[in-house]
Amino acid sequence: MAYFPDIPRIEYEGPESKNPLAFRHYNPEEVVEGKPMKEHLRFAVCYWHTFRGTGSDPFGPGCAVRPWEDGSDSLEMALKRVDVAFEFMEKLGVPFYCFHDRDVAPEGANLAETNRNLDVVVRRLKEQQQRTGIRLLWGTANLFSNKRYVHGAATSCNADVFAYAAAQVKKAMEVTLELGGANYLFWGGREGYVTWMNTDLKRELDHYARFLHMAVEYKKKIGFSGPLLIEPKPHEPTSHQYDFDCAHALAFLRGYGLEKEFRFNVETNHATLARHTMVHELLYASVHGMLGSIDANRGDLLLGWDTDQFPTDLYLTTQIMLVVLQQGGLAPGGLNFDAKVRRESFEPVDLFHAHIGAMDAFAQGLKIAAAIRREGLLEKFLRERYASWDSGIGAEIESGRANFESLEAYMLQKGEAAPNASGRQEYLENILNRYFR
Amino acid sequence: MAYFPDIPRIEYEGPESKNPLAFRHYNPEEVVEGKPMKEHLRFAVCYWHTFRGTGSDPFGPGCAVRPWEDGSDSLEMALKRVDVAFEFMEKLGVPFYCFHDRDVAPEGANLAETNRNLDVVVRRLKEQQQRTGIRLLWGTANLFSNKRYVHGAATSCNADVFAYAAAQVKKAMEVTLELGGANYLFWGGREGYVTWMNTDLKRELDHYARFLHMAVEYKKKIGFSGPLLIEPKPHEPTSHQYDFDCAHALAFLRGYGLEKEFRFNVETNHATLARHTMVHELLYASVHGMLGSIDANRGDLLLGWDTDQFPTDLYLTTQIMLVVLQQGGLAPGGLNFDAKVRRESFEPVDLFHAHIGAMDAFAQGLKIAAAIRREGLLEKFLRERYASWDSGIGAEIESGRANFESLEAYMLQKGEAAPNASGRQEYLENILNRYFR
Amino acid sequence: MAYFPDIPRIEYEGPESKNPLAFRHYNPEEVVEGKPMKEHLRFAVCYWHTFRGTGSDPFGPGCAVRPWEDGSDSLEMALKRVDVAFEFMEKLGVPFYCFHDRDVAPEGANLAETNRNLDVVVRRLKEQQQRTGIRLLWGTANLFSNKRYVHGAATSCNADVFAYAAAQVKKAMEVTLELGGANYLFWGGREGYVTWMNTDLKRELDHYARFLHMAVEYKKKIGFSGPLLIEPKPHEPTSHQYDFDCAHALAFLRGYGLEKEFRFNVETNHATLARHTMVHELLYASVHGMLGSIDANRGDLLLGWDTDQFPTDLYLTTQIMLVVLQQGGLAPGGLNFDAKVRRESFEPVDLFHAHIGAMDAFAQGLKIAAAIRREGLLEKFLRERYASWDSGIGAEIESGRANFESLEAYMLQKGEAAPNASGRQEYLENILNRYFR
Amino acid sequence: MAYFPDIPRIEYEGPESKNPLAFRHYNPEEVVEGKPMKEHLRFAVCYWHTFRGTGSDPFGPGCAVRPWEDGSDSLEMALKRVDVAFEFMEKLGVPFYCFHDRDVAPEGANLAETNRNLDVVVRRLKEQQQRTGIRLLWGTANLFSNKRYVHGAATSCNADVFAYAAAQVKKAMEVTLELGGANYLFWGGREGYVTWMNTDLKRELDHYARFLHMAVEYKKKIGFSGPLLIEPKPHEPTSHQYDFDCAHALAFLRGYGLEKEFRFNVETNHATLARHTMVHELLYASVHGMLGSIDANRGDLLLGWDTDQFPTDLYLTTQIMLVVLQQGGLAPGGLNFDAKVRRESFEPVDLFHAHIGAMDAFAQGLKIAAAIRREGLLEKFLRERYASWDSGIGAEIESGRANFESLEAYMLQKGEAAPNASGRQEYLENILNRYFR
Repeated sequence: MAYFPDIPRIEYEGPESKNPLAFRHYNPEEVVEGKPMKEHLRFAVCYWHTFRGTGSDPFGPGCAVRPWEDGSDSLEMALKRVDVAFEFMEKLGVPFYCFHDRDVAPEGANLAETNRNLDVVVRRLKEQQQRTGIRLLWGTANLFSNKRYVHGAATSCNADVFAYAAAQVKKAMEVTLELGGANYLFWGGREGYVTWMNTDLKRELDHYARFLHMAVEYKKKIGFSGPLLIEPKPHEPTSHQYDFDCAHALAFLRGYGLEKEFRFNVETNHATLARHTMVHELLYASVHGMLGSIDANRGDLLLGWDTDQFPTDLYLTTQIMLVVLQQGGLAPGGLNFDAKVRRESFEPVDLFHAHIGAMDAFAQGLKIAAAIRREGLLEKFLRERYASWDSGIGAEIESGRANFESLEAYMLQKGEAAPNASGRQEYLENILNRYFR
Repeated sequence: MAYFPDIPRIEYEGPESKNPLAFRHYNPEEVVEGKPMKEHLRFAVCYWHTFRGTGSDPFGPGCAVRPWEDGSDSLEMALKRVDVAFEFMEKLGVPFYCFHDRDVAPEGANLAETNRNLDVVVRRLKEQQQRTGIRLLWGTANLFSNKRYVHGAATSCNADVFAYAAAQVKKAMEVTLELGGANYLFWGGREGYVTWMNTDLKRELDHYARFLHMAVEYKKKIGFSGPLLIEPKPHEPTSHQYDFDCAHALAFLRGYGLEKEFRFNVETNHATLARHTMVHELLYASVHGMLGSIDANRGDLLLGWDTDQFPTDLYLTTQIMLVVLQQGGLAPGGLNFDAKVRRESFEPVDLFHAHIGAMDAFAQGLKIAAAIRREGLLEKFLRERYASWDSGIGAEIESGRANFESLEAYMLQKGEAAPNASGRQEYLENILNRYFR
Repeated sequence: MAYFPDIPRIEYEGPESKNPLAFRHYNPEEVVEGKPMKEHLRFAVCYWHTFRGTGSDPFGPGCAVRPWEDGSDSLEMALKRVDVAFEFMEKLGVPFYCFHDRDVAPEGANLAETNRNLDVVVRRLKEQQQRTGIRLLWGTANLFSNKRYVHGAATSCNADVFAYAAAQVKKAMEVTLELGGANYLFWGGREGYVTWMNTDLKRELDHYARFLHMAVEYKKKIGFSGPLLIEPKPHEPTSHQYDFDCAHALAFLRGYGLEKEFRFNVETNHATLARHTMVHELLYASVHGMLGSIDANRGDLLLGWDTDQFPTDLYLTTQIMLVVLQQGGLAPGGLNFDAKVRRESFEPVDLFHAHIGAMDAFAQGLKIAAAIRREGLLEKFLRERYASWDSGIGAEIESGRANFESLEAYMLQKGEAAPNASGRQEYLENILNRYFR
Repeated sequence: MAYFPDIPRIEYEGPESKNPLAFRHYNPEEVVEGKPMKEHLRFAVCYWHTFRGTGSDPFGPGCAVRPWEDGSDSLEMALKRVDVAFEFMEKLGVPFYCFHDRDVAPEGANLAETNRNLDVVVRRLKEQQQRTGIRLLWGTANLFSNKRYVHGAATSCNADVFAYAAAQVKKAMEVTLELGGANYLFWGGREGYVTWMNTDLKRELDHYARFLHMAVEYKKKIGFSGPLLIEPKPHEPTSHQYDFDCAHALAFLRGYGLEKEFRFNVETNHATLARHTMVHELLYASVHGMLGSIDANRGDLLLGWDTDQFPTDLYLTTQIMLVVLQQGGLAPGGLNFDAKVRRESFEPVDLFHAHIGAMDAFAQGLKIAAAIRREGLLEKFLRERYASWDSGIGAEIESGRANFESLEAYMLQKGEAAPNASGRQEYLENILNRYFR
């Protein structure tokens, strides 16, 4: 343990602690709703931002101070980086991590060499997993950075690119299985288009579906039992991403008979870029039985791109944990911090501050959500609001016994509908604020 | 013909005309791609904006000068308004119109009286249709203005409101049939929610599906043969409308087994509020066989609400007509001007300027689209771009003969995918501009 | 006290209270930073939303249940409404209110009659002020609702409209003085434009400046000693409002020599519609000595219009109170709740819930802001971050002794700038969360 | 001439030409409004996108095919790149180019070496300018890419960074003078902030003003006679850029007594990111005498970042040229194509397509704008619309003879303002469309 020499293992010190390198709320073993906090909060560190992020942006190159980096993309550096990552995660006390194939190992001169590179690093990852007990939440393949993917991967106009992507996902699924990954993820990358003028929309969607069917088939063949996840995002890098939001992905999956084989990995910043609240996307996914995992970050709603900030807003974490508790937990999914320190936060210790703050915000959100559920005011309000559906004309409609003619007869006699009650939004917002103190 | 005494019947005068009350491009009988222009451009005037719009906005009451209005919502005024509307449409030479039930006739003291009011006005509408040959493109029910719909209609928390809405749609379908309407439309109005805290998302979606199933059943019962249309919109009036965009509506329809019974009425301003280009929404609907009709307007992309401006952008009308020609036309759908004159354009003649400009812009867009198709450059570009899918590995993938293993084997041997070609967006944009001269 | 028979006077009951009609944090006499809370939190109720709002929106008419309203805009109703307002405010315990001239009294057949109507109501307002001790935070004139203002008021293309607006503001300033108003406000209403094609931008800006100069002159003449406030807003009702944000208004005021005569009334929802955070607009106004008053509301950042929601976000109220404390208070300005209950919250009690929640959120924000200042961590961080400016080359630059040549000489010798330190954003966000325990 | 071996010199071939490597509208010597087109359209190629752009984006590295690049940032490569640039510009027939210091020459080990590198390349640029007659529209310094500028340059919290930036701008002004540059430009880069929590807004603004005062002083000292330009931008890279839009920059300049020393370089994509139309920003700058130059590009209004697309929208180019003609031209400013080919357009020929299309779109826009001015309908409409200001009460107000009291007396007698006329937006939009064919 040498890469973060000045950083101790992060411990729980309680809400009054002034120590910035301690948890104030995240107490892994503390029991909430019958389970230790760590089982509710299946935190994962993401490899790409935390161990491959350099702080580059469209206006300047990387400026992150990472003393262990030698500036190369060598296999040796890749192996060293595994050690850095596990030291970091161990000190932080997170149970999971996530990666793209290309985050952990460099591409070689051809596919065969690339795969061999990956195998070498996977061995080291496995050793470190065994040493530390840290597990892989999900693996995925990077199908968007290499120039071969400039026009997309499964939706490229170039059939060879589809073939390459297929080979790459095959391998990524194998190493995910090898490492005991709990899920396998698809993020659309460049699956989308920039201009309709050069795009055959129908053909691209058909190819994408073909690709996912192959993935389902191969998953079954190798006996990978975890869920396949799709991560929606509306824009970036292409102007129109095919998996715009959960509903777009669901329409697509249903259209190609794939809806039983996938769940969603919902990301806060992607939800808001699609002009949905995070709680909407979560509820939408959850009521359709499709909420598989969460990318726990936050965007800046006044900016128009994916800022991938660490989630520290307690209203947000409370809402997320309410939905998670309501559906009985996220497992085998988890809370992956797909978030990066600001470019201006370029020192190694900033990585700790960022994760500690987010973990604490989720721990606090969990406790608030549990308190809300314990008190039951919101649930009671909801039940009473829809009471007219539990009997009488409401029950007839829900049961399928009513039709336009019977309802017209009912209403012609009654003349006007029973009066509405106030929606009480302001009262409910005040109730929510009660839990913040 | 007395309500617009100074306005002559609008005639085609050719592109050099300086007469603002003439068409420069819309020549109804001129043949384009084998059909008279009027059959491609099934224009409709919308009753709500054009005959019920007052120019009110959240910052001030109506200021529109409408000399025929007596300030009342009486049945007598409703009948007079029918005459105004048909004089307007006849002078303009549009073949269609659209309405909500409450646009044309006032509500009464109870449902029975309301229905009787509607019947009286429908008789007058029918007479005027017969006199002029102007037809009903679609009818619909206003399920959002009356205070009973404050929490939605089919998705209200109040079961009686669902029943009232059912009775209202039943009647609206009947009068649409009576008037020979070509389609029947559903716009979600207040079907959505403002705060998750008072909303049972699952139950509301189930009720909405139940409602639409009843509509399908009743349509068949009365022998209405036109399509049922759903008009997506992302926000307004609720923060999250259930029919956010075509994909949301498609996911919903597919989930409840309704996808064969509905098509979409795609509106430009709704597309852009959902952060899609209009051409994307049209293509999306069209490739899924779901493009039924179009609300032809335009939004201000720098503002965040539905401005419903008249469509005069030739790039927009060209793109729309390209998609329409490509799918072989819109009939029985049409191009409904769901657009309103600006509040500042408060004189009756502004209604003419607005419609003339929009009709001309579509006529010009149609001619440009036809020229593009005649020359075939874009189509040829597209065909060549996807050529790798027509044989070899591409054809194997499309035919379903390939899988992850065969593709890996193929690529391990090849090492790297064949090189990509440029997407040529700038070249294609230049090609498009060639037609604007 | 008869209009809200079931509502008691709202009392402070402490943070553990479960009574929704009580304050949990707002304890008017509790001393914070040396002053009773009520002096920090100069809350005002706004007349237009709270007593004239009906719940209408572009998709439906009003649905608010207001048993005291008779449906007329008569002078009698106007007087009764004053009593309603003061009963409401007294029960709530707010020290201030705000109004537009047309909120409180109806227009007459001509300007003279309109002014007489206003005088009648002002007498009643004055009596109620004296009875209750509630004061007028600011008055203003509604220069946007009447159809005469369709093209703007001071920036109308119609010179008569400018003259009418001048007469109206003259009267509104007089009644504000008569009622002891602490400030007089200008919100631009329709001062802006919808299309550049019909707008003479230069001439309109010149007229606007002329108008404000007249107002300054008249204010001095009648001895009104309170500040004149300008309230920026970027869009709505016009596409481009001239007072887009504080910077636009400041550039304008400086260009016409008016900057010493005005301050800003900064509104949260207007700040975010201009794509600024509220804390940015406040800081911007404050460092320029221009922060006069605050419209305390909140927008929905996923929607594109002014939703005017009640402010309950504790991060927001904390940030506002930090800026307010830092500049030594807002007086003679205040915190005006320019906010409306949701259309769905249509019962009288919702008005109480809304104001109670907002007042409590500000009280809690005040206490958190005071705690942050007491502990001093943020201030200390800032001081240390800019330490290089306190001596050496930094002090030379600030003092004006350095120039490009001396700085080049300095840097040619040094070769490279001293290293930067991390901006520590994540650490600072964690510090902030400590106060939300 | 060897770097674009297959590309001929681009010639004017008239509107019927089908040759994509020819101009259809840009005929440099054709006279419009008394001047050859090339004098109206002072086109500039930007060095950074066109010769340093690689196609990298946040999701992948560069993929541009640039056969002349050796992958290094050496001085030798820098010199070769000058030759590439001038071959490109000569073939295109553009009269101007623009650069940042770091675009053309690599940084050295220290400031002195960096300056020497720049001198070497500047000699080559000068030779090529002399050979070809191509001139420098403006020079500028890159104060945002190097990690020293992570917290800004003139507004850095680190005083040494201010000093370095001062030295860098000094040198950049010198080489701009040496190369006969027509203007010198400041784009704020990282002058702004990401979080208020680590920012001293007042101190940063004071430093920024100090910096610009030094620049003005040094410009005068060395006898640089061209204008100093500021280029506003609202977001990116920082969350809040200090030069948000023209009004922000104008307020700032006026506050620090700098408004006479600067003009604006207005960019389309920056205007729309600030939620203004381009024509608004241009008019705003122009009526304040501040429109100095234009960055001619285009954004995607459905995306939230600076896409820097080539401008091909004829409505946009027409509006720009209308404002330019109205203020009597842009010189010494010009139309700089601050635009980049899409990542997918990675071949050298795409650079030609992109510039040819943009140049043609501006040539066509110029011709349309001239036709609109010749016909004079818009101007006449505007004059008549404001006629009430030319005499009577309007003239009294404009002349300063009226005040609130005289206007009240006038209006009390008149009772109500003279009626308004329609704003005729739809009519005007139709007029505009007349010129598009």
